[in-house]
Amino acid sequence: MDAARLHEYTEEMDEALSIDEVERPEPSRSDHVVVEVEGAGWCQTDNHIIEGMWTDYVEQDLPMTLGHENAGEVVEIGEEVSTVEVGDKVLCHPLITCGECRACRLGEDMHCENGQFPGLNTDGGFAEYLLTSERATIKLDSVDPVEIAPHADAGITAYHAVKKATPHLFPGSHTVVIGIGGLGHIGLQAVDAMSATTTIAVDLKEEALSLADRLGADHTINSAEEDVAEAIEGITDGAGVEQVLDFVGADQTTALAPDIVAPGGDHHIIGYGGHIHEPSQALVNGEFSYVGNIVGKYTELQELVALVEQGEMHLETSEYSLEEINDVAEALEHNEIEGRAVIVP
Amino acid sequence: MDAARLHEYTEEMDEALSIDEVERPEPSRSDHVVVEVEGAGWCQTDNHIIEGMWTDYVEQDLPMTLGHENAGEVVEIGEEVSTVEVGDKVLCHPLITCGECRACRLGEDMHCENGQFPGLNTDGGFAEYLLTSERATIKLDSVDPVEIAPHADAGITAYHAVKKATPHLFPGSHTVVIGIGGLGHIGLQAVDAMSATTTIAVDLKEEALSLADRLGADHTINSAEEDVAEAIEGITDGAGVEQVLDFVGADQTTALAPDIVAPGGDHHIIGYGGHIHEPSQALVNGEFSYVGNIVGKYTELQELVALVEQGEMHLETSEYSLEEINDVAEALEHNEIEGRAVIVP
Amino acid sequence: MDAARLHEYTEEMDEALSIDEVERPEPSRSDHVVVEVEGAGWCQTDNHIIEGMWTDYVEQDLPMTLGHENAGEVVEIGEEVSTVEVGDKVLCHPLITCGECRACRLGEDMHCENGQFPGLNTDGGFAEYLLTSERATIKLDSVDPVEIAPHADAGITAYHAVKKATPHLFPGSHTVVIGIGGLGHIGLQAVDAMSATTTIAVDLKEEALSLADRLGADHTINSAEEDVAEAIEGITDGAGVEQVLDFVGADQTTALAPDIVAPGGDHHIIGYGGHIHEPSQALVNGEFSYVGNIVGKYTELQELVALVEQGEMHLETSEYSLEEINDVAEALEHNEIEGRAVIVP
Amino acid sequence: MDAARLHEYTEEMDEALSIDEVERPEPSRSDHVVVEVEGAGWCQTDNHIIEGMWTDYVEQDLPMTLGHENAGEVVEIGEEVSTVEVGDKVLCHPLITCGECRACRLGEDMHCENGQFPGLNTDGGFAEYLLTSERATIKLDSVDPVEIAPHADAGITAYHAVKKATPHLFPGSHTVVIGIGGLGHIGLQAVDAMSATTTIAVDLKEEALSLADRLGADHTINSAEEDVAEAIEGITDGAGVEQVLDFVGADQTTALAPDIVAPGGDHHIIGYGGHIHEPSQALVNGEFSYVGNIVGKYTELQELVALVEQGEMHLETSEYSLEEINDVAEALEHNEIEGRAVIVP
Repeated sequence: MDAARLHEYTEEMDEALSIDEVERPEPSRSDHVVVEVEGAGWCQTDNHIIEGMWTDYVEQDLPMTLGHENAGEVVEIGEEVSTVEVGDKVLCHPLITCGECRACRLGEDMHCENGQFPGLNTDGGFAEYLLTSERATIKLDSVDPVEIAPHADAGITAYHAVKKATPHLFPGSHTVVIGIGGLGHIGLQAVDAMSATTTIAVDLKEEALSLADRLGADHTINSAEEDVAEAIEGITDGAGVEQVLDFVGADQTTALAPDIVAPGGDHHIIGYGGHIHEPSQALVNGEFSYVGNIVGKYTELQELVALVEQGEMHLETSEYSLEEINDVAEALEHNEIEGRAVIVP
Repeated sequence: MDAARLHEYTEEMDEALSIDEVERPEPSRSDHVVVEVEGAGWCQTDNHIIEGMWTDYVEQDLPMTLGHENAGEVVEIGEEVSTVEVGDKVLCHPLITCGECRACRLGEDMHCENGQFPGLNTDGGFAEYLLTSERATIKLDSVDPVEIAPHADAGITAYHAVKKATPHLFPGSHTVVIGIGGLGHIGLQAVDAMSATTTIAVDLKEEALSLADRLGADHTINSAEEDVAEAIEGITDGAGVEQVLDFVGADQTTALAPDIVAPGGDHHIIGYGGHIHEPSQALVNGEFSYVGNIVGKYTELQELVALVEQGEMHLETSEYSLEEINDVAEALEHNEIEGRAVIVP
Repeated sequence: MDAARLHEYTEEMDEALSIDEVERPEPSRSDHVVVEVEGAGWCQTDNHIIEGMWTDYVEQDLPMTLGHENAGEVVEIGEEVSTVEVGDKVLCHPLITCGECRACRLGEDMHCENGQFPGLNTDGGFAEYLLTSERATIKLDSVDPVEIAPHADAGITAYHAVKKATPHLFPGSHTVVIGIGGLGHIGLQAVDAMSATTTIAVDLKEEALSLADRLGADHTINSAEEDVAEAIEGITDGAGVEQVLDFVGADQTTALAPDIVAPGGDHHIIGYGGHIHEPSQALVNGEFSYVGNIVGKYTELQELVALVEQGEMHLETSEYSLEEINDVAEALEHNEIEGRAVIVP
Repeated sequence: MDAARLHEYTEEMDEALSIDEVERPEPSRSDHVVVEVEGAGWCQTDNHIIEGMWTDYVEQDLPMTLGHENAGEVVEIGEEVSTVEVGDKVLCHPLITCGECRACRLGEDMHCENGQFPGLNTDGGFAEYLLTSERATIKLDSVDPVEIAPHADAGITAYHAVKKATPHLFPGSHTVVIGIGGLGHIGLQAVDAMSATTTIAVDLKEEALSLADRLGADHTINSAEEDVAEAIEGITDGAGVEQVLDFVGADQTTALAPDIVAPGGDHHIIGYGGHIHEPSQALVNGEFSYVGNIVGKYTELQELVALVEQGEMHLETSEYSLEEINDVAEALEHNEIEGRAVIVP
């Protein structure tokens, strides 16, 4: 079968991956599931992987097929699989988890000690077939795999952060969403569906803010034109905001926290474009936190699928063939993708 | 009356404060309480105030009497005070709160929008008498004001962080306490009394670790001699620790987080000796948080007093007269105070 | 001034209260506030008070002016009141709290140890003027006191229960609202605004269900015609519901819990029309809880006002003069009030 | 092999079970584990099962081997088992869970939709060998299987309730433990190890109270001699207690709640000796809850094992052979077992 594989780390996105002929995967464990990929979302993290930015954090064995936002049809199952059948349409959670370590047993399966992340440390879904496991598949009732594929990582990551933020929200509270891109526009909708907070969308680009506005943001701030902290001070009468969802994570966005977060509030780090540089005294005086966020739990992906099936999430997608994959990589690098690109192998 | 006042910011601790003759305070509101100070703890924050380190965060009007860890006897009360009487021994919460703002109404009174902090932005307790309010006093049943005074800030700050940490602790979990000084040795005892976690004390000084050991620490690490991350990896079988209570907050201690905090865990910033410098990706990959901590709530001080009255907290104190106050400032600057210094005016 | 007062407990609603000429209240404490009542909601609890149903739980000194859902204009204030001014429109929290007891200090002011509840154990708002305190008033920006008055008790009680339920809700979960009357129709809207749960409204009356439907209920069950447990089993595929908001609290409704609540879920008791009779084994086997609910906190009333000001709550009210008050009592006794009756003195 | 089996429901404990010769179990799934039973605790629930008290709640297929508190040595494993090996000493969680349903995925595996409970709805551990699964085994480092066996159900059930109670406890709070028997004496120790609450032990028997006293209870009340509510009012200065752990669950013990639980507190139902009969108004007025509790999670059993290995739990056990099993049943029925009986097959 065809698979788009990374052979070496590079900054050259236009020739990052090569389409190789590889063997179709087979189940080798009782819980294995083989999925014929119908849609596989392209993610900013794919660019970061190609640049070698994850080598400090995970072991990668090149060549490796990328693609961690996968959906399609079950074509083969291991002998003890009982929750999905051949022919089922499924969305794949991006982590194949063991189910036995303490993190899995707690339901915190995104911290699985033995997890494999297709497209990050094992072969992913930019290919005709994907090997995954029963624990990583969610059966779809009514939604098209192509349309829901990006929720497998972009969606679940945004949802996970929102789920951590919502217990601290209440009518009259304020939530800032920084970066209305692939993840941010999902996060904005999720926080809106799951709370009665007042939302403030922040972005550099007018189109992104206009999307935020259409999706129901209560306020928008163009950070290229306005002083963000001042604008938020005005909107909140000087009180600051309870929660910040920072989908950018750059030096400039993390530096906003001391000025915009209300005492006891959280600045969620989801994007990872830069650093935090702050005196400890700022965190003490403002009693705010920088909260790290990784991909969500399996059960959170179930909840997100429910939200999608309820029609509460609008996701902008555009389809590309496997052959166009380097064009997608290049385009995203230049911020030229509208919504989320989905590879349709 | 005599009061030890700061006239200008300085690095010279041996002549930081001058003993001035000032007027004894009188109640001017229905809820005012005048306390004859019996003990007032000296705190690292007093050194920081003298150096001008808080001018960016609060307004200070010099000359100002320092001292925010106060206890003594009620000598005069406003006309609507009903919960304490003249003659009562009281411990003073370091914040005089309004009771009307949303933070106060939520019980998060350490975030009071109209709060006054004696010794930080209004006259404090290094004096014969202190003006405070009913909302800031806790009646003592059996404990000596001199012995409990440092709990008014050192204690309540340590307790507040511990109270935020304990919901994440369980038998088999690990908690690191960094810095076994004035706050740290209280934090260590509180976490021990309130959970069944395994504690790991970290300090540069052998005497501090020996104190930790006497107070029941399960493990100790001398950071001058051992690699802290490596030692913790050994103790936790590579799993990392659920909670870090960082009573130092220096660049070197905040930098430990990515290596020692288990996924989903917290690195609590309580001391503020330096900065955080970390890539956002570290927080994403490890899904840990830097959690800011300020002084505790009034109700937390009630709880801490209960813990003290139950005999579960051992506090090392030494007494000094008002005249010796600059010697105390100087000695603490050089790390030469054993336990907590209490001024007895 | 005129005031509608209860002289003795009775089952005769049509002559329950008498309009007496009494003295207009004056501030006698520094935090007192006198409000000219513009609207005072009539509540099922008023009927219960008239019947003497609360004598076992609180001390009542007759004659007493009823009315605990009050809103109007501030006409006089004590000398230390700083958060409201003469001329302000305010909504009155139904409990005058001390601000000093531990419950108040925790923000759990509905459990104030020294609280007075106008219309329950001190004079209430079915009168031209009401004596209350600064801690019990919320300034209104844009909403009409008459329209918002019932939120002071009906609203805040429903909201309080919803706020306790929402942390357990998620997209794909189910919430049952039993009794779509004065409180229930507020609860239904609040749970909808604050979560992405699927709602199921249960009532005996077709008009109530039709109101639920207009307010956005996802499912409705007519308990006079259908077996409620069976219907819920069908809607939830046998999984049961995560949260039940029981605004009736009758023997028949509390008896539903073992059959309809999912493991780990809660059956919230808000209405108090009857009893719980269940074997302990039912709670053990199903691991569900019966959760008691009283009126909400001051800060919850602030949140509810924010929700009202955001236009997310639709409240059905009808206005009556003070003279018509016994007609209202009688009509509610026979379930003949549409929406919420508001007395306009 | 020999197995003690129930052939029909009976009130006659002295001939309840018969020792039958049955086939030794074999692994039939990749995750199966066969344990040679070294200790199997006898539980009050075994008496209830024999009486047929669980037939309304679970399907039982007689004859069935009883025994749900099992520990021993692994003698055979399925081909994909990776976390335990032949020769390992293990404690068996009483529920064999599927790992795939939403409850399992959330970590709430005690609510597994496909769970099997050996000794309740499939063959249990009053036999030489037990068939269980990898997900139900916890490897023991240092503790003797016979001594720890009762923790598999009695311990984990008590611990589970304590874990739900502790977030509501604080220094100065009060916790009542009703019934200092097999579960209660474990619960008392767990709440002591995991919080700084003040404990009040209640029992009818002087020996039970004397055990409570030895285990560190701060107060004891003999309910045969004292009015429990009055005694608690005295101990708590009329404030009531934050949490009740009711290991009896009889009509008289559940009826204590309105009189002893502080506002917002919980009465945990763990024992199931009777009913709840209360007016809804009592729950409304006191805002307390009746909280159902079932057996604990797998991860909670891990935590309990850690507590045992730290030496913080003292468990009274006495050993019996398989042949003596009906004597044990009879003795427990008459309240004549000291501590916990463990069958050593």
